[in-house]
Amino acid sequence: MQTKSENACFGGVQGVYSHASDACKCDMTFGLFLPAEARDGPVPVLWYLSGLTCTHENAMTKAGAQGWAAEQGIALIFPDTSPRGDAVADDEAYDLGKGAGFYVNATQDLWAPHYKMWDYIADELPALITGNFAIDGDRQAITGHSMGGHGALTLAMGLPGRYTSVSAFSPICNTTGSDWGRKQLSAYLGDDEAGWAAHDASLVMRERGFDGPVLTDTGTKDQFADLLKTETLAEAAMARRQQATIRMQPGYDHSYFFVQSFIEDHIAFHAEALYA
Amino acid sequence: MQTKSENACFGGVQGVYSHASDACKCDMTFGLFLPAEARDGPVPVLWYLSGLTCTHENAMTKAGAQGWAAEQGIALIFPDTSPRGDAVADDEAYDLGKGAGFYVNATQDLWAPHYKMWDYIADELPALITGNFAIDGDRQAITGHSMGGHGALTLAMGLPGRYTSVSAFSPICNTTGSDWGRKQLSAYLGDDEAGWAAHDASLVMRERGFDGPVLTDTGTKDQFADLLKTETLAEAAMARRQQATIRMQPGYDHSYFFVQSFIEDHIAFHAEALYA
Repeated sequence: MQTKSENACFGGVQGVYSHASDACKCDMTFGLFLPAEARDGPVPVLWYLSGLTCTHENAMTKAGAQGWAAEQGIALIFPDTSPRGDAVADDEAYDLGKGAGFYVNATQDLWAPHYKMWDYIADELPALITGNFAIDGDRQAITGHSMGGHGALTLAMGLPGRYTSVSAFSPICNTTGSDWGRKQLSAYLGDDEAGWAAHDASLVMRERGFDGPVLTDTGTKDQFADLLKTETLAEAAMARRQQATIRMQPGYDHSYFFVQSFIEDHIAFHAEALYA
Repeated sequence: MQTKSENACFGGVQGVYSHASDACKCDMTFGLFLPAEARDGPVPVLWYLSGLTCTHENAMTKAGAQGWAAEQGIALIFPDTSPRGDAVADDEAYDLGKGAGFYVNATQDLWAPHYKMWDYIADELPALITGNFAIDGDRQAITGHSMGGHGALTLAMGLPGRYTSVSAFSPICNTTGSDWGRKQLSAYLGDDEAGWAAHDASLVMRERGFDGPVLTDTGTKDQFADLLKTETLAEAAMARRQQATIRMQPGYDHSYFFVQSFIEDHIAFHAEALYA
């Protein structure tokens, strides 16, 4: 593992690190914020999964999360959104290939060699950060934005017992029923839709749900609302009587100006679960 | 109008009053909490519509609302849930007739003479309380529980501009698709379902929505969840991008122990809108 940068930040350290990934078979970079408390021992961690076109850097610089995480004594991990490098397959579209891993393990020939973002987030990166930093693997929570909200929800429900709580900003809620999903699941997983269900937050919510609190925020002016399909997740959560707060926030769009407006709420929500 | 009782309460007065109702053609009784601020001039008012089998008294004695309303300087009005008296038609069932007005104007012969709860709540009682008490008719908000949540939502959306904000505890969300609704709408309004739509919160949400914030709370252990159909309201609100917070609260049932656990939140929510 290589340290790319470390900056003092709210009494803790905002670092950027790279490492050779076994899952993705390429070098991967991530951001990690450690609060001051990490100097004294392991701290809880909140995963932040980013959206389409993002790297590890977007949320780290634009979400305004570190101040609130410092206040709660929580680490933040900002993974990249896809494998990277010249050897990695890509597509001209912004929403397929690099920057658009969709948090799945690709099975199709073109993508399978590197696009293993589910395994990377579920297995490799947790082991790496708990092994190398003062992070308590028994206290993990997860959030994300847009495609990352989809990732946060599907990972949280797909790995029961792993995360205390899950939240999302403007999540893609219904990949199997949206152009933000059908195209990518088809490319990465093939045309047999039976294999897609585990990667549709609304379908997993309907089938399995989450053993803990769920919070989502989406803006009434989100320019991608028709692709997000918030209503499918809301319907599924309420139908299964999932402990949940589903909010539609007036006037907000899909941007990081929206995320930063509610990140305090989300971090407080996770802190309550992480310290319960 | 006759004063039945007045008790000092959180520095204000909890009164109970009766009057001859033009809308319902019978004597009607209501509870009214006036905070201390009402001695100096008109105060905002929060309507609390009660559920099946309730009178004006249940929420007044069991919701724990007055302390929070006093803190915010807001009046609370607790109407009855149906016309009353020996001359008024009734049914042996707990969920039809007295105590079960469903906040509609009955059109069918048996019920039409007295069951005009929509007009009573929308027109007669507002005029009565703003004319006789220090209540500001330009600052009204509305909430309710169960059948009263249905009433709060349908009245709020059916009277645009009247209420700044609407909330509900365990609301009946889909009267046209539930045994808590179909039976009563059929009895009161007749078998032509076209006339029912205005009294189905999810259908009105889908068609019209609400020009202001919406908040609902329902318990994951609500014993009547299958009758409430929270998922239909959640789906409709998110699909139309309604400013809304739809919450499913862990472990709570349908009782006033649930209502009193979240009444502070709801009163703070309305206060923010009433004082905006």
